[in-house]
Amino acid sequence: MTKEQTTTARIAAVLVAGSWGTALASVLANNGYHVKLWTRNAEQANDINENRENSKFLPGVKLPDLIEATCDMREAVEHAELALFVAPSGAMRDVARQAAPYLSPETLVIHATKGFESDTLKRMTSVLAEELGRSADQLVVLSGPSHAEEVIRKQPTTVVVASAMLKHAEQAQDALMNGYFRVYTNPDVPGVEVAGAIKNIIALGAGLSDGLGFGDNAKAALLTRGLAEIGRLGTAMGANALTFAGLAGVGDLVVTCTSKHSRNWRAGYMLADGTPLDDVLSKMGMVVEGVRTTRAAYELAKQYNVEMPITDQLYEVLFANKSPRMAVEHLMGRLRTHEIEKIG
Amino acid sequence: MTKEQTTTARIAAVLVAGSWGTALASVLANNGYHVKLWTRNAEQANDINENRENSKFLPGVKLPDLIEATCDMREAVEHAELALFVAPSGAMRDVARQAAPYLSPETLVIHATKGFESDTLKRMTSVLAEELGRSADQLVVLSGPSHAEEVIRKQPTTVVVASAMLKHAEQAQDALMNGYFRVYTNPDVPGVEVAGAIKNIIALGAGLSDGLGFGDNAKAALLTRGLAEIGRLGTAMGANALTFAGLAGVGDLVVTCTSKHSRNWRAGYMLADGTPLDDVLSKMGMVVEGVRTTRAAYELAKQYNVEMPITDQLYEVLFANKSPRMAVEHLMGRLRTHEIEKIG
Repeated sequence: MTKEQTTTARIAAVLVAGSWGTALASVLANNGYHVKLWTRNAEQANDINENRENSKFLPGVKLPDLIEATCDMREAVEHAELALFVAPSGAMRDVARQAAPYLSPETLVIHATKGFESDTLKRMTSVLAEELGRSADQLVVLSGPSHAEEVIRKQPTTVVVASAMLKHAEQAQDALMNGYFRVYTNPDVPGVEVAGAIKNIIALGAGLSDGLGFGDNAKAALLTRGLAEIGRLGTAMGANALTFAGLAGVGDLVVTCTSKHSRNWRAGYMLADGTPLDDVLSKMGMVVEGVRTTRAAYELAKQYNVEMPITDQLYEVLFANKSPRMAVEHLMGRLRTHEIEKIG
Repeated sequence: MTKEQTTTARIAAVLVAGSWGTALASVLANNGYHVKLWTRNAEQANDINENRENSKFLPGVKLPDLIEATCDMREAVEHAELALFVAPSGAMRDVARQAAPYLSPETLVIHATKGFESDTLKRMTSVLAEELGRSADQLVVLSGPSHAEEVIRKQPTTVVVASAMLKHAEQAQDALMNGYFRVYTNPDVPGVEVAGAIKNIIALGAGLSDGLGFGDNAKAALLTRGLAEIGRLGTAMGANALTFAGLAGVGDLVVTCTSKHSRNWRAGYMLADGTPLDDVLSKMGMVVEGVRTTRAAYELAKQYNVEMPITDQLYEVLFANKSPRMAVEHLMGRLRTHEIEKIG
């Protein structure tokens, strides 16, 4: 923190004003930050500033007075002590590119986006490092079991902040930690990013399974195999296997697969009755990260030569017109009689 | 299998006729076994034999004709190819002692009970080995995410059978495997037994958390820390850490903590509003293994010098009149600012 910043109001920029961005903005505002919440959408900025509500993404919740929405990127990031990027994975590069000219090298950069860049298959820290012209080691990723709908209502939540450099993770922890939002540090950036992205695929699968009338036993099996699948890709990409046993791994997977708040689960549930993907996506009205992540993970599995049977089946349902029932039956299908459980 | 057995009907004994025992009996009957389902309770035996229903534990489900209930231990086990012990942990020694005189040394012994013996803190395979006078290495434990209510309705389910000797695990796998009940082998008996027992404590905690109005984020954090706690005790007791990442570990934990079928979760949920333990237990009308397991795990944690904060809090709620809210707030409580996530 510079000397100037200690004597003036502490400013945090949050980009963009989706449900998770807005919930994290409210954590920072509750911690005393003046939060500049950036959005492209002037109508949404107006809604937030005049009605103190993000009525599209988090209806019915009054936002803290310290949140100020803006469509002006310079105003959002120029004096920020920290900038928190929460754009959808498909928009991250563009948002970062717009922010780059105004961002001070001293501003801490955190992201909380769960997905890969579709074309390049890059993790979000790589995208940010490229566009912001700084080393990926300086960046922080935030993840964990954290539905926005609960965080904005101050319900107890635990998350992980990971950075290759501990001091940056600790800076993020200091900024975000409070009585209802508990923040742990972790050095494993690839693990946290891969776990956060892939769990959305498993959640789509869990929604399919529930939508087809399979029970809790089947869903638990799917989650268990899903966790193994996440771990296989993650470790191939340089992650620490232990990360998948923690909050960003099993914690986030469980909450996403079993909670009524999860939009990926809901998308899977709707797909189960044969609703076409395009209709599901337009009904959701929000980005469903699991859909684009399925395509990216399918490619990454080939690239890293890793077995990802759940991802493969979801890919065929989403992009090759496979029937959801066939896919889930394939996953639950008869196995060789003497199969040993493969874990780790 | 002896020559005699191949030429006559294959007999399986299941002891006793609770919900899980009855569900497993129906799997064996569907696989062609003549199942002798032993119960102390003549009225229950009558209900099963005459009405083809276990109306106390699994009401509304017609049982396969190949299940025959009996109160005669000799008749139940004498010619059995396999004996499946599913007594509550507190009754296991007594049931095994009654069975011992009639059990052939060639009969495969499996158990599917999740808990420790209260006084001795022994695992179920130790209790069985002592009472049946055979090596624990010959015994098989069955566990995994498997609500009886779903198994008896033939909903897809995956379980693990563990034995120190692979051939015994494979024998159990051959007997139980079918199109809706998929059985994997695992060599880690202590891991499977510890995971199955302790998850009932975490489920009680999850019920408390839900009953007190905490959200899905908090429950996911509890599950994640619970899994770490199970792993710490398990590895101290000789288990393989990977078992906790599999079906008997995270799979069973998830289903027990998030499903409406779980009686341990329901007991915790009832405790949350201040209902005394005795009233909760009498309202449940079934054994709640998590209650006695909490006491056993509390002692085991001391014996093996392992940190088990969730078990400690539950112990105080159940046996030392601590208020559930205090306990959950303690677990969710403020942490040191710079805590690093401890996993594995």
